[in-house]
Amino acid sequence: MRFGLLGAGRIGRIHGLNVAARGDATLVALADASHDAAASLAAVSGAKVASAEAILSDSSIDAVLICTPTDTHADLIEAAVSAGKAVFCEKPVDLDAARIRRCLDIVAKSGKPLMIGFNRRFDPNFSALEKRLRMGEAGAIEIVSVISRDPSPPPVDYVKRSGGLFRDMMIHDFDMARFLLAEEPVEVFALGSALVDPAIGAAGDVDTAAVLMRTASGKIAQISNSRRASYGYDQRIEVHGSQGMLRAGNIHETTVEIATGAGFRADPVQNFFLERYAGAYRAELDAFIAAVRDRRQPAPSGQDGLKAQILADAATESRRTGKPVAVALETI
Amino acid sequence: MRFGLLGAGRIGRIHGLNVAARGDATLVALADASHDAAASLAAVSGAKVASAEAILSDSSIDAVLICTPTDTHADLIEAAVSAGKAVFCEKPVDLDAARIRRCLDIVAKSGKPLMIGFNRRFDPNFSALEKRLRMGEAGAIEIVSVISRDPSPPPVDYVKRSGGLFRDMMIHDFDMARFLLAEEPVEVFALGSALVDPAIGAAGDVDTAAVLMRTASGKIAQISNSRRASYGYDQRIEVHGSQGMLRAGNIHETTVEIATGAGFRADPVQNFFLERYAGAYRAELDAFIAAVRDRRQPAPSGQDGLKAQILADAATESRRTGKPVAVALETI
Amino acid sequence: MRFGLLGAGRIGRIHGLNVAARGDATLVALADASHDAAASLAAVSGAKVASAEAILSDSSIDAVLICTPTDTHADLIEAAVSAGKAVFCEKPVDLDAARIRRCLDIVAKSGKPLMIGFNRRFDPNFSALEKRLRMGEAGAIEIVSVISRDPSPPPVDYVKRSGGLFRDMMIHDFDMARFLLAEEPVEVFALGSALVDPAIGAAGDVDTAAVLMRTASGKIAQISNSRRASYGYDQRIEVHGSQGMLRAGNIHETTVEIATGAGFRADPVQNFFLERYAGAYRAELDAFIAAVRDRRQPAPSGQDGLKAQILADAATESRRTGKPVAVALETI
Amino acid sequence: MRFGLLGAGRIGRIHGLNVAARGDATLVALADASHDAAASLAAVSGAKVASAEAILSDSSIDAVLICTPTDTHADLIEAAVSAGKAVFCEKPVDLDAARIRRCLDIVAKSGKPLMIGFNRRFDPNFSALEKRLRMGEAGAIEIVSVISRDPSPPPVDYVKRSGGLFRDMMIHDFDMARFLLAEEPVEVFALGSALVDPAIGAAGDVDTAAVLMRTASGKIAQISNSRRASYGYDQRIEVHGSQGMLRAGNIHETTVEIATGAGFRADPVQNFFLERYAGAYRAELDAFIAAVRDRRQPAPSGQDGLKAQILADAATESRRTGKPVAVALETI
Repeated sequence: MRFGLLGAGRIGRIHGLNVAARGDATLVALADASHDAAASLAAVSGAKVASAEAILSDSSIDAVLICTPTDTHADLIEAAVSAGKAVFCEKPVDLDAARIRRCLDIVAKSGKPLMIGFNRRFDPNFSALEKRLRMGEAGAIEIVSVISRDPSPPPVDYVKRSGGLFRDMMIHDFDMARFLLAEEPVEVFALGSALVDPAIGAAGDVDTAAVLMRTASGKIAQISNSRRASYGYDQRIEVHGSQGMLRAGNIHETTVEIATGAGFRADPVQNFFLERYAGAYRAELDAFIAAVRDRRQPAPSGQDGLKAQILADAATESRRTGKPVAVALETI
Repeated sequence: MRFGLLGAGRIGRIHGLNVAARGDATLVALADASHDAAASLAAVSGAKVASAEAILSDSSIDAVLICTPTDTHADLIEAAVSAGKAVFCEKPVDLDAARIRRCLDIVAKSGKPLMIGFNRRFDPNFSALEKRLRMGEAGAIEIVSVISRDPSPPPVDYVKRSGGLFRDMMIHDFDMARFLLAEEPVEVFALGSALVDPAIGAAGDVDTAAVLMRTASGKIAQISNSRRASYGYDQRIEVHGSQGMLRAGNIHETTVEIATGAGFRADPVQNFFLERYAGAYRAELDAFIAAVRDRRQPAPSGQDGLKAQILADAATESRRTGKPVAVALETI
Repeated sequence: MRFGLLGAGRIGRIHGLNVAARGDATLVALADASHDAAASLAAVSGAKVASAEAILSDSSIDAVLICTPTDTHADLIEAAVSAGKAVFCEKPVDLDAARIRRCLDIVAKSGKPLMIGFNRRFDPNFSALEKRLRMGEAGAIEIVSVISRDPSPPPVDYVKRSGGLFRDMMIHDFDMARFLLAEEPVEVFALGSALVDPAIGAAGDVDTAAVLMRTASGKIAQISNSRRASYGYDQRIEVHGSQGMLRAGNIHETTVEIATGAGFRADPVQNFFLERYAGAYRAELDAFIAAVRDRRQPAPSGQDGLKAQILADAATESRRTGKPVAVALETI
Repeated sequence: MRFGLLGAGRIGRIHGLNVAARGDATLVALADASHDAAASLAAVSGAKVASAEAILSDSSIDAVLICTPTDTHADLIEAAVSAGKAVFCEKPVDLDAARIRRCLDIVAKSGKPLMIGFNRRFDPNFSALEKRLRMGEAGAIEIVSVISRDPSPPPVDYVKRSGGLFRDMMIHDFDMARFLLAEEPVEVFALGSALVDPAIGAAGDVDTAAVLMRTASGKIAQISNSRRASYGYDQRIEVHGSQGMLRAGNIHETTVEIATGAGFRADPVQNFFLERYAGAYRAELDAFIAAVRDRRQPAPSGQDGLKAQILADAATESRRTGKPVAVALETI
């Protein structure tokens, strides 16, 4: 499979190198507004630098990876599927659900596959947990808990453009909750505070938040987020079921432990999302290539992207109004 | 210190034997509607069987332990403090907050000490965590999480008389959240479902529930409850703070672990609350005796009992109405 | 069952109070060379103070607990069984194996039960592991590992009278290895150094030691000891078998854990043998009383005491000569 | 740096691909007696297939990786250093210590760097532990424990040619013990049995073994090996020191844990040495390239290879004779 890459920034570079390292795929060309970023990745990946237009119009390219800024995603997805490409796009499709809907209509008409980069579904730990859940190891699902805490808050400038914590950070957890629940939430209630950095609060956003959701059958999901965890990048899931509890946790930097009079001390957990999710990014690409090759719709789909966005919007509204917000994802 | 015991059922027996085993306290007399329960505990504790009236009017008795059915608590507290006794009463004071307020007025007028049996504050693990939190080990508190899951649901008959899960079971977690937050919640949102036993739902109650609360300064507390955990009695707390995360967990039945091709298997966690909290019950009695002896107000106080009840009432209302409920505990 | 206690020091006090707390046994009388120790325990246990002779000649006493200094054990065992008592004696019977043999001959002739206080067999963790081993959970036993490390070294004066580390400290581990192997060692090789306290080396003893043993069928046991562990009282066992590995470890002071930039820190392990083995001492007494009542030979028996002593002697000799030492325990 | 690879079997393939994946090194040519193995690796690595002679006489090649059968190692090392190459050779240099000595003499005369593939020193966990040990975190070293258990025994044919468990398997642990002790052992005592596979015993070897060693200053090392662990590839180290205990353990396949009535079950540990030590192989190559580039002697050196071999020989002799064997590594 021949790939074009749009966007050679931090995450684009990861995906580009993952394609280049495969035996069954080639990174043919890449585009980036920054000449340096493009040239640097081209040098190590063997791809040529090209414009986005040239990539989309190159009929030898089967698939494109969209890793550009968020506000270009929907346009590029439309252009790429219209050019007959299979598309992998980093989350989110757009910060506006209505825009996402229009984009997905065009994707649907094109008949081309679209996959959204909710990488955590492909984390080996979370993926294994989900498979075991589906096999019934925990029985019927009752309570899903997702904990997600970043090592440190982003700059306020980033926060201002981000759409807010619920759309920028917790969107991963909304997708994870849906992935684990296997039933759509119908109601969202959110709390949020600026406890980490007052400047985030001054910018109208929160850095500490929690959400409760329920499904039609009464399953409960709880999510908590913080923009700062002193001990590393904290990513945990736990599912309480009728026959057992399944959980998956963090990875410590090493297995070394020291015991002294102060107690037993293990390492902090991996601190950086590119390190923690390195395996997830590779597995995500595996899944995309396999789905395209087997002419299956990849998951997570554009609809999954839309639904997570709707939950993030609902949480944002709930936090603003102080009231729970009903959502209707089943009909999407 | 000379003790009288009102109520010699399961929990009364625990407290009675704990008094009898001490060198600095004597269990003088005990009363129970069941002659057998009273006689059985009298035989092993060395106390005499008496009526509640006789115990309250015995001027040689300094303190009474109230372990009778909930609907007698408030009356007995009032009678006991009026008779000049120091009082330890099992939670809750009453299922009706207004009744609790009237009772606490009488206690206040009496000037006698009243302690409420929120035993979990005295669990050595939770107690150590709270002390370290107060010493600032985790920095400023941001998110408090409390998980509480019973091994198996109570009979529906019990559920019908219980006041509902929020007042019967989660009340412990409301107290724990207040204990850890060290700031009063101002808002409560609750979800609940009957997923474990449909008969509990038919009785108008829930067996699976989650609550979100926030304080005036924006601290967040999340609580989840289930009436059934296949793997034991699950009692965990976690506090995320600006400088660290403190957590305390369950106690496995033994430290034995087996590794085979199926993985590494540790024991289930302790299954029964009397086993899990045996140390807590002893430490709770220590605290009561020390406070009475030193003429300090014991904690948790009657006000703590009232506040937990108000939070449980708010959660019950939130679950019924689907809306968050504001509470004003600071003024109590 | 009516008990007399000989020796009211630290360990005698534990056993005496454990008897006194039971419903099915009474501590009738106790003797100690120290009047204060005897009087203090008598006051809290309800037993009377008496001479050893009076206790042994009191026909109303069924069983005696021998907790006196080591050099009196063999004489007191002989006197007690000759007086028709069931006997529980703290380890060791004697530091001289020949003396133990003579003592056990007299016990055998008396027909009275004798149990030796290898308390670790009764630790709930180790006991559960051994039961699961016997049920075949780990398959055939191949390697038994025992780790035993004290919090801090004893005074050199104590060391001089102790018989040396192998007889004073590792004797527990020899018994544990035999308990787990369920087959007698036939060879012992020992290394030892004075690394903790040079004064222990100057006194001719070691404070750091390791032993390898093998059984006739080729099973291997490894033991390591240190007189000092900065992180608490370290007591671990591990059995590698054909179908799995079973291990049991230490108990942390609490389940509290803190995560910060320095990592995840759990508490030290319980620091004191009386705390760590409190449950073991109670279970040990259960086993003694049950065996005497059911007219079964209690385990660990006098022979178990002798065999552990022979292994300790062999290790001592091996360390001195630098050569492995053959032992023949099957014939005892 | 331009590399030639001698031997393209399982481990040669790992090293070859690791070279090929680097930006600072090129795999120029490779040789293998099996045309298929050579061609397969050439195809994915971009190296050409050549004879060993051609590789050694190619003056454009700076360094060779020797991954051929053991009995060719010494000859190839000699030829390679004589041809002016830097050499990385898989362990062992030879099964005969005298042959190793002659080989190292030639290496010494050549002045070329030689590194031996004791990959475990480069495992991120063990490497981090060793660094912290050297920084004094555990204080003075007293007891070093190394546990090494393979998932399943090799074929008896392999065993017959292997030099025996001590030289084939435990040699890694001898190197690890030396690495951690930072002081040479002066005495070795070994026990061994064929408990896993009687055919291994019939072939004159053992599959279950334990070793005790001491250093001149009295530090103790204990090693245990089994050729079969039902629960994965078990690789653990623990160092007991005067101020603390440092340990590093296994890596579970995932962080998923399930709790049910049967207890809490974690995954087996990684089962295959190429998976467990994938990072170690990369770090080992880093160290070799850095040392050659900086004109430093790489570690582990040929002398480290010789010393581990001498310890393995001593253990083999000890097992055969039943006696401890003295070794003099300081003078090498």
